[in-house]
Amino acid sequence: MTTVQGYDPRTSAPIGPPVPMTPAQELEAICAAAKAAAPLVDALPYSTRAEALRAVAAALRDAEADIVALADAETALGVPRLSSELVRTCVQLEMFADVVAEGSVFEAVVDLPDAAAKPAPRPDLRRILVGLGPVGVFSASNFPLAFSVAGGDTASALAAGCPVIVKAHSAHPGLSVLCGRIVAGALKDAGLPDGTFAVIHGTDAGRALVRHPSVTAVGFTGSLQGGRALFDIAVSRPDPIPFYGELGSLNPVVVTPGAVAESGAEIVAGFVASYTLGAGQFCTKPGLLLLPAGHGLDAALAGAVSDTTVGPLLTGRIQEAYDDTAQRLAAVPEVRSIVPPVPVDGHGHVVAPTLLAVPVPALLADPDALLTECFGPAALVIEYSTMDELHAALDAMPGSLTAGLHAAAGETELAGAIVARIARRAGRVIYGGWPTGVAVTWAMHHGGPWPATTGPLHTSVGVTAIRRWQRPVAYQNVPDPLLPEALRNGNPLRIPRRVNGRLTADPI
Amino acid sequence: MTTVQGYDPRTSAPIGPPVPMTPAQELEAICAAAKAAAPLVDALPYSTRAEALRAVAAALRDAEADIVALADAETALGVPRLSSELVRTCVQLEMFADVVAEGSVFEAVVDLPDAAAKPAPRPDLRRILVGLGPVGVFSASNFPLAFSVAGGDTASALAAGCPVIVKAHSAHPGLSVLCGRIVAGALKDAGLPDGTFAVIHGTDAGRALVRHPSVTAVGFTGSLQGGRALFDIAVSRPDPIPFYGELGSLNPVVVTPGAVAESGAEIVAGFVASYTLGAGQFCTKPGLLLLPAGHGLDAALAGAVSDTTVGPLLTGRIQEAYDDTAQRLAAVPEVRSIVPPVPVDGHGHVVAPTLLAVPVPALLADPDALLTECFGPAALVIEYSTMDELHAALDAMPGSLTAGLHAAAGETELAGAIVARIARRAGRVIYGGWPTGVAVTWAMHHGGPWPATTGPLHTSVGVTAIRRWQRPVAYQNVPDPLLPEALRNGNPLRIPRRVNGRLTADPI
Repeated sequence: MTTVQGYDPRTSAPIGPPVPMTPAQELEAICAAAKAAAPLVDALPYSTRAEALRAVAAALRDAEADIVALADAETALGVPRLSSELVRTCVQLEMFADVVAEGSVFEAVVDLPDAAAKPAPRPDLRRILVGLGPVGVFSASNFPLAFSVAGGDTASALAAGCPVIVKAHSAHPGLSVLCGRIVAGALKDAGLPDGTFAVIHGTDAGRALVRHPSVTAVGFTGSLQGGRALFDIAVSRPDPIPFYGELGSLNPVVVTPGAVAESGAEIVAGFVASYTLGAGQFCTKPGLLLLPAGHGLDAALAGAVSDTTVGPLLTGRIQEAYDDTAQRLAAVPEVRSIVPPVPVDGHGHVVAPTLLAVPVPALLADPDALLTECFGPAALVIEYSTMDELHAALDAMPGSLTAGLHAAAGETELAGAIVARIARRAGRVIYGGWPTGVAVTWAMHHGGPWPATTGPLHTSVGVTAIRRWQRPVAYQNVPDPLLPEALRNGNPLRIPRRVNGRLTADPI
Repeated sequence: MTTVQGYDPRTSAPIGPPVPMTPAQELEAICAAAKAAAPLVDALPYSTRAEALRAVAAALRDAEADIVALADAETALGVPRLSSELVRTCVQLEMFADVVAEGSVFEAVVDLPDAAAKPAPRPDLRRILVGLGPVGVFSASNFPLAFSVAGGDTASALAAGCPVIVKAHSAHPGLSVLCGRIVAGALKDAGLPDGTFAVIHGTDAGRALVRHPSVTAVGFTGSLQGGRALFDIAVSRPDPIPFYGELGSLNPVVVTPGAVAESGAEIVAGFVASYTLGAGQFCTKPGLLLLPAGHGLDAALAGAVSDTTVGPLLTGRIQEAYDDTAQRLAAVPEVRSIVPPVPVDGHGHVVAPTLLAVPVPALLADPDALLTECFGPAALVIEYSTMDELHAALDAMPGSLTAGLHAAAGETELAGAIVARIARRAGRVIYGGWPTGVAVTWAMHHGGPWPATTGPLHTSVGVTAIRRWQRPVAYQNVPDPLLPEALRNGNPLRIPRRVNGRLTADPI
């Protein structure tokens, strides 16, 4: 096989021309160009980087109709969702343009000399974050725009001053070619050097990218299995490199007895809408709902599910894995099917939603069997009889991107204890809502302890996603004209800096 | 072998009673206690953490005479150096106390709701950095105080809200027991929970620590080989954890032709003093000096070395490795011995300094043979005939903690080009000085690309060392009373926060 073929999830029929896999020799040339470009990209003024990011966003907006049509053909996620995802993709690029221009993300620090410092006099020391070097980005299947060729990893790496080589996802090869052409063209027009950006295709090329000596870090969004395999390559190199994988997440949501009594119907509606959104193909899908035993919501849950239409899954492989995993979960002892898994015959990658339930003691008897991600429209209700059972279940949870709580107005003490507990194993704690929908802001954290990610310090969404691609350089007693502009006495860029411990944008 | 024995480097004789290696069962209990303590330590008010760090520093100062005497007996680094290192150790603890109390390092962020946000209305989102959980710290041989039981890794991890388990270095077991007792006592008196701190001994216990499910991150300072072996364990776990290793570094220093002409004598004196300081056992030892061919400094260099007395090396193993490596380097074709390697007969781990030289073409013919760290008082002069040769040599350098430049006053353009080039492969760029001596400040970066460290984003010295032990948690629409204090509307802690993108300590 030397090509990647896209398929229409609605029919399973091939769609668009096959895309050639990137041959080894071409990958070599791409990596060499990225290595040569790295110091040039990192040396560009922040303002030039910001303009380039805005130019990419503008070019994507200009091509909206073509992009959304092709994305829908290859993913069947629907025009409204994909139009919204394109807006988000552009907003991300523009957010990084804003923060690059503002300058805080480069964390300029100046410590002036101090002859009285202990144990020894202190020299002039200045620190700034620079780009790591060429970055590999693995696109996601489920966000063909926002986590793909022009997605958050690409935007944050360019913002950091790093060339980017994107491994396209095989679920949307045609879209990846189109977006790659648009991004490369916009960057070239904005004056960025050759080698700043490229898209590659094929599993072998992807593995070779992670292994390549010129690549200094990798971002990945996808499955636990695929991510772990690439992580293992990255950390086994003679020179290990950072690998930021966003892998699997169960996203537990706790509902207190008071919340069931106060707003059970709304919770049922919100939960079913959230776990079936995008056919359940969100990394933030609420896969676990912790309800008090005797909640009496089975009929409401089943009804809400039967009122829900889900689109086809992204690929035939995802469809098979969904059907297999749902069947396997339903067969675990003491698991009750509120909505049993039923494979769907017919065209395309069509599946039906599943909703299972299990009491806490049965969950704790075999947590590995049940606390496993079922990518697609499936979820598990976990029923706790006591608060001790609830806490034991929460302590058994693997790391998640998110964890949620629905509590009644008067339950402050109980809610406080649960919030503190779920915060130990999750990157984002959501109160009275649902985890799908990830705002792109300074405060967002889209990450979490293993297996949610390979690195609990980092986020793949929000401003601080840039940090994955930055390394500090300190300058000691370096004369002003030889310093990067951001560190010179006059602060010609007028960026915020920490001078002798205090934040200021004033010159020294 | 079930004990660790300290030795006097001056005589090779055993010193002090043997220290029992930590048995598996005891390690299990220590890790369980650390796991139980983790949420309690992380929930302590920042002010309590700060007081505890100050209490540790005060307890160390109180025991200065005993600590320095025992440290000198086990390491032979000398009383003046060890007294200064103790001051530095206490200054580090107090710096982290200051920054924890000030609060910037927790990076509180508040993004208020925005109904007009695109592509969707934005909820209330607030982000804070919390402690990762129990941290393993591997002590260094060469800094028995500042990078050991009460060193920078311990101080920064406690500051982050993490329990700490220190693996003592076998070169100073008695000192580790003493310091461990002092630190544990001070933390207990300061009200920190049981399980906050422990010291373990023995290689097997160290490996088991890295593998232990309760340990969430590891800090290490030591050799490339030892660090890589532990890194491999950390990343091969079912749940890989961050491993921050500071490994080997060559710390190249470039001297321009103008600088040789202007201040050759001072450069010779400074270089020899720096590379033989502490018997060359600094991670920042300038191991490579890049001089213009025909520099005419051989006699001055040899004279400066012969005027220098170096103390014994820390251990018999370090002594053997030094003698072997120095001989091996001297035997590489075209290497010239300015001061040939001469093994020293006699008591203790005594060695003589070595200084070798090689032209750039010979270096580039076999960079792996020559660009290797020789721990101890050895260095290599690299002679460049043209600027192209200089640049080629710099581009062949592995990642280093530091890189230096000596240039003459008028060489601004040349100096600027060299500064930009050496900054690509080093964590700290030093102008007109020497890399030994690492200030403990906001701007310090003590890190660098592989093999200087296992993680180019992080530093083991300076304020931002705390970041290695912190993970973000975001709170979405969580009611004010359920939020951590640092994120509440009223900002009761009065810490700096980024509210809607702007830094402020004001309440909302």
